[in-house]
Amino acid sequence: MEPVTPSPPEPIAGNTGRRRFLKRGLALGAALATAGRAASGSSQQPPADSSKVLGRHMVPYPERSRFEQAAKKKGPPTMPDEWGANFTPLGESLGIITPSSLFYEVHRGGVAEIDPRTHRLLIHGMVDRPVILTMDEIKRLPSVSRTYFLECSGNTQTEWGAPAAPTVQWTHGLTSCAEWTGVPLSLLLREVGVQKGATWILAEGADASGNERSLPMAKAMDDILVAYGQNGEALRPENGYPLRLVVPGWEGNVNVKWLRRLTVTDRPYMTRIEAVDHTSLMPGGKARRFMFVMDAKSVITFPSGGQRLPGPGFFEITGLAWSGRGRVRRADVSTDGGTTWREATLQEPVLRFAHTRFRFPWRWDGREAVLQSRCIDETGYVQPTLAALVKVRGLNSTYHNNAIQTWKVTADGSVHNARA
Amino acid sequence: MEPVTPSPPEPIAGNTGRRRFLKRGLALGAALATAGRAASGSSQQPPADSSKVLGRHMVPYPERSRFEQAAKKKGPPTMPDEWGANFTPLGESLGIITPSSLFYEVHRGGVAEIDPRTHRLLIHGMVDRPVILTMDEIKRLPSVSRTYFLECSGNTQTEWGAPAAPTVQWTHGLTSCAEWTGVPLSLLLREVGVQKGATWILAEGADASGNERSLPMAKAMDDILVAYGQNGEALRPENGYPLRLVVPGWEGNVNVKWLRRLTVTDRPYMTRIEAVDHTSLMPGGKARRFMFVMDAKSVITFPSGGQRLPGPGFFEITGLAWSGRGRVRRADVSTDGGTTWREATLQEPVLRFAHTRFRFPWRWDGREAVLQSRCIDETGYVQPTLAALVKVRGLNSTYHNNAIQTWKVTADGSVHNARA
Repeated sequence: MEPVTPSPPEPIAGNTGRRRFLKRGLALGAALATAGRAASGSSQQPPADSSKVLGRHMVPYPERSRFEQAAKKKGPPTMPDEWGANFTPLGESLGIITPSSLFYEVHRGGVAEIDPRTHRLLIHGMVDRPVILTMDEIKRLPSVSRTYFLECSGNTQTEWGAPAAPTVQWTHGLTSCAEWTGVPLSLLLREVGVQKGATWILAEGADASGNERSLPMAKAMDDILVAYGQNGEALRPENGYPLRLVVPGWEGNVNVKWLRRLTVTDRPYMTRIEAVDHTSLMPGGKARRFMFVMDAKSVITFPSGGQRLPGPGFFEITGLAWSGRGRVRRADVSTDGGTTWREATLQEPVLRFAHTRFRFPWRWDGREAVLQSRCIDETGYVQPTLAALVKVRGLNSTYHNNAIQTWKVTADGSVHNARA
Repeated sequence: MEPVTPSPPEPIAGNTGRRRFLKRGLALGAALATAGRAASGSSQQPPADSSKVLGRHMVPYPERSRFEQAAKKKGPPTMPDEWGANFTPLGESLGIITPSSLFYEVHRGGVAEIDPRTHRLLIHGMVDRPVILTMDEIKRLPSVSRTYFLECSGNTQTEWGAPAAPTVQWTHGLTSCAEWTGVPLSLLLREVGVQKGATWILAEGADASGNERSLPMAKAMDDILVAYGQNGEALRPENGYPLRLVVPGWEGNVNVKWLRRLTVTDRPYMTRIEAVDHTSLMPGGKARRFMFVMDAKSVITFPSGGQRLPGPGFFEITGLAWSGRGRVRRADVSTDGGTTWREATLQEPVLRFAHTRFRFPWRWDGREAVLQSRCIDETGYVQPTLAALVKVRGLNSTYHNNAIQTWKVTADGSVHNARA
């Protein structure tokens, strides 16, 4: 950079208008004071002035900067690394696309490794023309690309009553969003000729978990994808490479990964994972099962638990809203613990069954603030408080916690989970 | 997989309906014949049945499958690896998002390596309150996320008249599309207070190329982003980490990477890169300069040069269309070299200044076919033939070749660049 000596910034009068965000003193002075500070934590220093030295050469498939450290975190920590969940760092998320390397994972048998040249999809059962398809055959068929969220039904499980999880990565990190590419399942079912009386399909994955899930024919003929693409390239191994189901708006575990078999049938199979696991015990002692749809939900990703505001002033509150019943109609934000609500701005385009980014301008006065968001979807459903949810579902529900999340900003700027 | 003995597929009568895609014989027989074939080209075999062994453990930031090899390619090959372009493998693209690792690059001084903690953005010149901003200060400001294509003005440069490039990666691989997150430049300019008479800004990058580009104030106040996010995480180093301009619809080189300075001024600076480079010599001997807008363009990515169809039957022709003047209104496909055109299906949502995926069902009869696509944008502009373009621009134009691309499918299924 050539030497420059700009005039010091003039005070900005008032600081109350929506158009003024740069606080006096935030700019020139503070910036110059740290401009020469050396980077720490890296084994090799980058050049002091990158314009004075030739940069790195090009490579065929470059990775992110070594200064970026966003990472998934595995839980629960007591389990082996092939069993459990890998949580997306939502506190660092931008926009609505989740990078494939940061897309959440849940495994019960580790990440299956599959050679796409030998992988096959069998479709049989109550069909006229059973087939076994290669990946090449599947990729030749008419395809679509759609941006959809996936959420584990166990997301936000910590927030029923256990000690509150400290960060949005742990409370909500089992939801992610990607652009999926694949073949409509309805097309495949028409090809094989579904027989009269067939009302369900059973989907089987090729991993060691024995994941088999029953899905109603109506959804299969509506919008389920047999997907091989994720964010413009092949699925990641952790997300079912080379083939998976994507079931828009429905709980993650029915989006069967490493898909190898579809059996058309006239009833649900009542497999272990749907008859025993993935059921919710209700207050009356009965259990809900086949809780497919993910209800409307939202969470503030900034500021969120574990983050710290450097001091009073302007901040943009931002987060994600989504609904398994269609489009997000509105996201509201409260900075006083739910006493008053104001409508946030939704990032366009707002897509059916996709994460929707919301933003809300906020000037923090330095006093304790209690931040919440709530999602209203196109059906008019309003995301409930935890108290309202517990009243209906009790505290043994485990799955499908879509309650309003609460973050408390304390006077020192630190942010904490303040579950009501 | 459990042993299964499905009945052999029945013949599908007719094969002419839109709903039947699986050819008799394509399915069961061929698939079973290769099902046991071992994978080649990998040092370690994956398990024969992935459901019988525990899979890999989870990691914090997983990468793609080792069976996936899509890669950028550097050109021209005679230049050092810090100078030139790295072409996106469009022939393997899916949907509209380009994975950040496959996003095209152009460099004149290599990939700058920058520590975000010491990086600064100076905004000065004809402003009331010059500022130097840290990355943290920039990220606190109101932000937006937008999906935009970027295209190098030199994209498709080979197709003016030189020996036709063999693949869509080489002919069109200098365009890509991502979801960008950043601060509207208009907001920053309002913060610093643009003075009366200021009509241009000069943007300077922090790499070794001395990339400085002048941009008119009207565009700066409209939709330019000062971006730090790309596909849900930080910009990749090759794409300007930690800060760049994103100038929707305008040629790649004005989307200044590694942005460190914005100078507000009353005229274009006439820097080397805009006064000498990046100009086009017209037939009359005069040169066009400041050719900012990328005109409407499209290309078929499958089937495209270097690919091979395994035999007659159904295929989905697919490609990308885009326009620097707004939304794509229509994409047409011809399978007879432009004699007849039919409208392709556009993937929703069709976004302003974004790649738009189009798809067109095609049953190849095994005879030579000449495939073309053309884009019509919302202004009514129709992508021209090369002959029409050359008539106006001559053959010394170098930049901004948006002509219709032609691929020839020969009787053996191989696909070739057949530039008219």
